[in-house]
Amino acid sequence: MTKIYLAGPDVFLPDAVEIGRRKAEICARHGLIGLYPLDNAIDLTTRDASLGIFRSNEAMMIEACAIIANLTPFRGPGADAGTVYELGFMAGRGKLCLGYCNDPAPYADRVRKFTTVERQDGRLVDTDGLTVEDFGLSDNLMMIHALDLHGCALVTPRQAAADRWHDLAAFETCVRMAAGRLGTAGAGMS
Amino acid sequence: MTKIYLAGPDVFLPDAVEIGRRKAEICARHGLIGLYPLDNAIDLTTRDASLGIFRSNEAMMIEACAIIANLTPFRGPGADAGTVYELGFMAGRGKLCLGYCNDPAPYADRVRKFTTVERQDGRLVDTDGLTVEDFGLSDNLMMIHALDLHGCALVTPRQAAADRWHDLAAFETCVRMAAGRLGTAGAGMS
Repeated sequence: MTKIYLAGPDVFLPDAVEIGRRKAEICARHGLIGLYPLDNAIDLTTRDASLGIFRSNEAMMIEACAIIANLTPFRGPGADAGTVYELGFMAGRGKLCLGYCNDPAPYADRVRKFTTVERQDGRLVDTDGLTVEDFGLSDNLMMIHALDLHGCALVTPRQAAADRWHDLAAFETCVRMAAGRLGTAGAGMS
Repeated sequence: MTKIYLAGPDVFLPDAVEIGRRKAEICARHGLIGLYPLDNAIDLTTRDASLGIFRSNEAMMIEACAIIANLTPFRGPGADAGTVYELGFMAGRGKLCLGYCNDPAPYADRVRKFTTVERQDGRLVDTDGLTVEDFGLSDNLMMIHALDLHGCALVTPRQAAADRWHDLAAFETCVRMAAGRLGTAGAGMS
């Protein structure tokens, strides 16, 4: 069966393992095997635990045909850095890239919640004078267009999910699209 | 001459073009050609400007042998998402990966500046109950270990740079290491 890497800050939730179980179940219903970073047991008390996690995640990505990245804003106006790195890694390897974001607001609107934003000489800037991307996209253009050109366009709900960390409707849409693109649609029914 | 992709939120600075010029000059002194996202003129008034930027950056990355990623914290406790995506993309393609961060603080300490962090059941968590990575690393482990295993360890100054956006000492260290690894060291002298 086709394997798909499930990237996201879900691993930082208190119920991270349970979320992974639910995601893998949805994948199975669509004929896919979901690989979730916490599937591999890493001893967090060892000195090189972080290196072990890296190696394990990289091995899973190399094994998978596709990635579904949870790009819901994490600890700031944009996506989790680890997830973004993994999306780039998979795009670089020519794998199918999918992603979702449970907050449909454009990036510039989200930045406004964290800092003052104003227009200066035609540029939209934050209080540090740094440009705020203002293309109406959900996040940094590199991720959004990576999805457009290396897979399927970002999936967002019409309204922000009531529980942004546990609502898996947009995730399931990605799984359905991945199954369609990878030719496994319906395989889970057999 | 060997080409190297210069990734970073430098492009969001008011003097973005000037920084790119200085970075390219440093590369030239070490026998390398620095490719900087703003080298390609994109008409920002067109409807598909962001797609044009994406295509142009991706083409530069494919052309380059290596990446130097500026991972200095941007609009939050961690690195700029576009830069992180690009680091992943280059790692995925097996290119030489280098990076620097002009703030030497561990990630968990930086998170403390933005939100309250406390220990709960052994996990370090923020006010949303999300785990804060606490491996003593400078940023998310995927980026830090990507540098360790696909290039050279992250370069940080001993003390935070007085001007984190314009101090290019750590950048130059990366260029010197890249030139050594790519066999171009000294070529710029000829």
